[in-house]
Amino acid sequence: MALKCDVQYGKGSSGFKLTKVGVSGVRKPVLIKRPELTNPLNSVVNCTIDIFVDLPASQRGSHLSRNVEVLREVAEESTSEPVTGLENMAVDMIRKLLVKHEYAQNAYVNIRADYYKANKTPSGRDTLELYTIHAGAHGVRDGEIRKTIGVEAIGMTACPCAQETVGEMLNVENPGFPMMSHNQRNVVTIEVTTGVDENIIVDELIELAEKSVSTPTFELLKREDEGRVVINAHTNTRFVEDVVRNGLTLVVHHYKDLPDDAEILVVSDSQESIHKHNAYAERTATMGELREELAQNIPAL
Amino acid sequence: MALKCDVQYGKGSSGFKLTKVGVSGVRKPVLIKRPELTNPLNSVVNCTIDIFVDLPASQRGSHLSRNVEVLREVAEESTSEPVTGLENMAVDMIRKLLVKHEYAQNAYVNIRADYYKANKTPSGRDTLELYTIHAGAHGVRDGEIRKTIGVEAIGMTACPCAQETVGEMLNVENPGFPMMSHNQRNVVTIEVTTGVDENIIVDELIELAEKSVSTPTFELLKREDEGRVVINAHTNTRFVEDVVRNGLTLVVHHYKDLPDDAEILVVSDSQESIHKHNAYAERTATMGELREELAQNIPAL
Amino acid sequence: MALKCDVQYGKGSSGFKLTKVGVSGVRKPVLIKRPELTNPLNSVVNCTIDIFVDLPASQRGSHLSRNVEVLREVAEESTSEPVTGLENMAVDMIRKLLVKHEYAQNAYVNIRADYYKANKTPSGRDTLELYTIHAGAHGVRDGEIRKTIGVEAIGMTACPCAQETVGEMLNVENPGFPMMSHNQRNVVTIEVTTGVDENIIVDELIELAEKSVSTPTFELLKREDEGRVVINAHTNTRFVEDVVRNGLTLVVHHYKDLPDDAEILVVSDSQESIHKHNAYAERTATMGELREELAQNIPAL
Amino acid sequence: MALKCDVQYGKGSSGFKLTKVGVSGVRKPVLIKRPELTNPLNSVVNCTIDIFVDLPASQRGSHLSRNVEVLREVAEESTSEPVTGLENMAVDMIRKLLVKHEYAQNAYVNIRADYYKANKTPSGRDTLELYTIHAGAHGVRDGEIRKTIGVEAIGMTACPCAQETVGEMLNVENPGFPMMSHNQRNVVTIEVTTGVDENIIVDELIELAEKSVSTPTFELLKREDEGRVVINAHTNTRFVEDVVRNGLTLVVHHYKDLPDDAEILVVSDSQESIHKHNAYAERTATMGELREELAQNIPAL
Repeated sequence: MALKCDVQYGKGSSGFKLTKVGVSGVRKPVLIKRPELTNPLNSVVNCTIDIFVDLPASQRGSHLSRNVEVLREVAEESTSEPVTGLENMAVDMIRKLLVKHEYAQNAYVNIRADYYKANKTPSGRDTLELYTIHAGAHGVRDGEIRKTIGVEAIGMTACPCAQETVGEMLNVENPGFPMMSHNQRNVVTIEVTTGVDENIIVDELIELAEKSVSTPTFELLKREDEGRVVINAHTNTRFVEDVVRNGLTLVVHHYKDLPDDAEILVVSDSQESIHKHNAYAERTATMGELREELAQNIPAL
Repeated sequence: MALKCDVQYGKGSSGFKLTKVGVSGVRKPVLIKRPELTNPLNSVVNCTIDIFVDLPASQRGSHLSRNVEVLREVAEESTSEPVTGLENMAVDMIRKLLVKHEYAQNAYVNIRADYYKANKTPSGRDTLELYTIHAGAHGVRDGEIRKTIGVEAIGMTACPCAQETVGEMLNVENPGFPMMSHNQRNVVTIEVTTGVDENIIVDELIELAEKSVSTPTFELLKREDEGRVVINAHTNTRFVEDVVRNGLTLVVHHYKDLPDDAEILVVSDSQESIHKHNAYAERTATMGELREELAQNIPAL
Repeated sequence: MALKCDVQYGKGSSGFKLTKVGVSGVRKPVLIKRPELTNPLNSVVNCTIDIFVDLPASQRGSHLSRNVEVLREVAEESTSEPVTGLENMAVDMIRKLLVKHEYAQNAYVNIRADYYKANKTPSGRDTLELYTIHAGAHGVRDGEIRKTIGVEAIGMTACPCAQETVGEMLNVENPGFPMMSHNQRNVVTIEVTTGVDENIIVDELIELAEKSVSTPTFELLKREDEGRVVINAHTNTRFVEDVVRNGLTLVVHHYKDLPDDAEILVVSDSQESIHKHNAYAERTATMGELREELAQNIPAL
Repeated sequence: MALKCDVQYGKGSSGFKLTKVGVSGVRKPVLIKRPELTNPLNSVVNCTIDIFVDLPASQRGSHLSRNVEVLREVAEESTSEPVTGLENMAVDMIRKLLVKHEYAQNAYVNIRADYYKANKTPSGRDTLELYTIHAGAHGVRDGEIRKTIGVEAIGMTACPCAQETVGEMLNVENPGFPMMSHNQRNVVTIEVTTGVDENIIVDELIELAEKSVSTPTFELLKREDEGRVVINAHTNTRFVEDVVRNGLTLVVHHYKDLPDDAEILVVSDSQESIHKHNAYAERTATMGELREELAQNIPAL
């Protein structure tokens, strides 16, 4: 049956342009290329995806099903040719979206995905830890596509100020001794936005994020490992501000070849054990701005 | 217009009874009686409410709008006569539900509500802290109504095992000195289910919950208070198991007049700072069972 | 270093038994056996898992790390020998837990996992849809192990009462014509709890769940498919009560060989489009009870 | 005891500035002025609040407790002098934050709050519906303060395209007759950002949001009202794109006196009944841009 309903092509109830129209919260498993891992457990990532394009004033509706078609294509293709990174999959989707939505000037893809990465506890035991990948891309017709890759890692911070206060209150003579403090889950996010040709390895981003906190955390800790994690946290106390600045320093030093227009986001969100609310710090900047600030300050890292 | 649609009265597509039919997630502000507080900030509680009755095999549909009518009645009545407790409001609703749903043998009400209570920090500063009330009731036609009142309080626990391990690893000679450990948010829940004539004061339940953890937490802590909270936690280390047993002991001692058939639930859910997952402990028992166990063990509290 | 901290073995702060002690919210990817599917996208399931045992009054703490060890073992084993079902993995875990926790009388495992299943739209297009698996097990030392497998499927319901009312209000002469009504997302849950020897195919449970609602839903619908889904919903209107009873009928007819002590849960949770709250219906019963009720009523399905 | 810990004043581990440092998720009840309502149920709003300032490179830590002090002050003051709007409370907080954080150049406040507003069903019955307020402010030292007030309203949309397709498929001769379609919850957000002197009435914003969708929804609908809501939705079908454009048109017409630099956000998020994912549309623009677009297109509203 040839259904001729084409109300989407009609003129809208007013002539306003729309910034973003599309679908949100679409779920899809994707196969990614991880040469170092041979079992599928770590190669399938379950994605939650938002896909938008803009809409001119002259058209009433966007063709939302095309967004899902594009997603299905790239997910299907991943089964024969695993994607090299979710941000690259997002770029691929942007290109297809701008073809399918001939009226759109902008296309946007945002992806969140659970991600498992092998790690080692302080005493060297193998562990598999959970992270969240943030990926996405934004493309302008006849213009540039920018892509974002980022990670969210749950670590631990111990507070330097409470540690010093407690030492003072208990009249401790040896200030070098790691005094107790409050400590808690700290969610660190690092995102990097660049042109399509840059190549950021998500496993390296996770390592930078975990070096930013007082200590990474682990799903399984036998006694000595547990003690070591606690000691590491308290000999390495950090405010949320420290976490973000450490993350920025690590990013600037690690990505020496990234262009100055790369955009960096670092966030530290601390689920304070002494409060019912969170402590939070954030920096957004271009790589160029960070390099300039760094040149003016010899970091103490 | 007299609409005669009465498909709810028709026979269902099969003859099965249904256990619970109703509405969930209804939001409603209610005015509660708090004589000690003169400003309205602490007398209005925003409730999220589930209301169910059972349904015989002979009837196709339950009249869901009657559930909302009952809720509106009690909420409206609260503006002239504040309710004495959300569990008593639930009992009131049960009675009305069994009248309105003439076909029902059981009625169920579950309520969650944010609740603010004045407290003092270790150094005596005033503070207003947030808790969650759990309330509800279940009634049987021509039978008993049982009501539940409970609280969920966010406190802090420090781990006794990691503390001992760290002392050993650092070869600390003075074992009485409060050594560092991992500490974190711990959500304690205490619920008490009784007949309609018992009278549980929710503010007292909150106090018992906060005594169960290593230390309560506070929205505002100046330096000395912060140090005091950290020291209190580390001189008062507790596993999730300890938190639940402390809660049980406090409940048994505090409610000496409650009958043996009162049902008690105590939960401790610890958002572990050293792991990405939680540690959890729970006990459900009647007051009679707890009293018997207590009689066999002189508690060390 | 031989750390001798053994505070867990000490006596608790009181002599109360604990019902459940363990870890919650542990995340783990597992490989499951799906012979009909050849690509890994549909064989890896990301699980969120709670693992508990009970604790006698005589022991202060449970050894929580053993719970994670058990989980790691079964997940690791799945990479060489995919699990035949998450409920069977849960049974395997129960057996290991009762060995590792020599003091425990009960062990509990609860699993939630995203799950993708191939389906076809009304016009026959291929689609991959998302579901949630509910799995678990409970074992008693020297007693029985019971296992649970269930699914949560998002479908659509259209309301029969509003449809009839609208027809009356608009004075429609042809009552057979599918009149408009309100329709919405309806989340159906079916869970089956049995002994360890029963064999429930999760894909069949999903099919029963999707037959219970007015129509299943799809990630991608071109024009005719979209129209067909809407028409199907409105020629197949259902209350939440109908959804649960349809689910019960389908379960009783499909699982003729399940013993009478199998426990069945069917839930329908409707995110009402005309209200801000949900409509909800639930039945819990044994297979024996359902068979008896069915024998007394010839179902109209 | 005079504790001299002042690590916050020390230099950070690197010289990077931070964009936002503060607390998030603080909960606080506030009393607002609602002259038309005499009972406290509708005058107390429970707020969830984020409070941030920026931090220069020269300082290690921000004084987070000052953020909570500012919040406590304004909440306490509201009990004797109810706030005229949460966005005005946010402006008040910005001024106090820039005094307390002498090193900060920027201050940010974000507020979310549940809000109840009286409404009438189609047949004129009284109802009290739940909305979410979005409020906030951003201030620059020695510069301007901008404030935001917005609402989030849950309404209903019916799809115009599916309606037309169904009519075609069923070969309906009378195209004026309201044909069935899929319909669902649609969450509309309207936010307006202005200088401090503008005065936006939040109840009016809610009315604009509810006029943007196919129909508002209600907690209690007796038969005729329910039919009326369904008919209204289907004689008033709207895409998410239509909802946003209707919202923009209503805002432009309603706020004729707002300056051209007022910033407008309108979002429509549709919890599609035929899909498991959402449909989404958004426009961000200044009032000046919207007026210009409107001048070029005579709206059909």
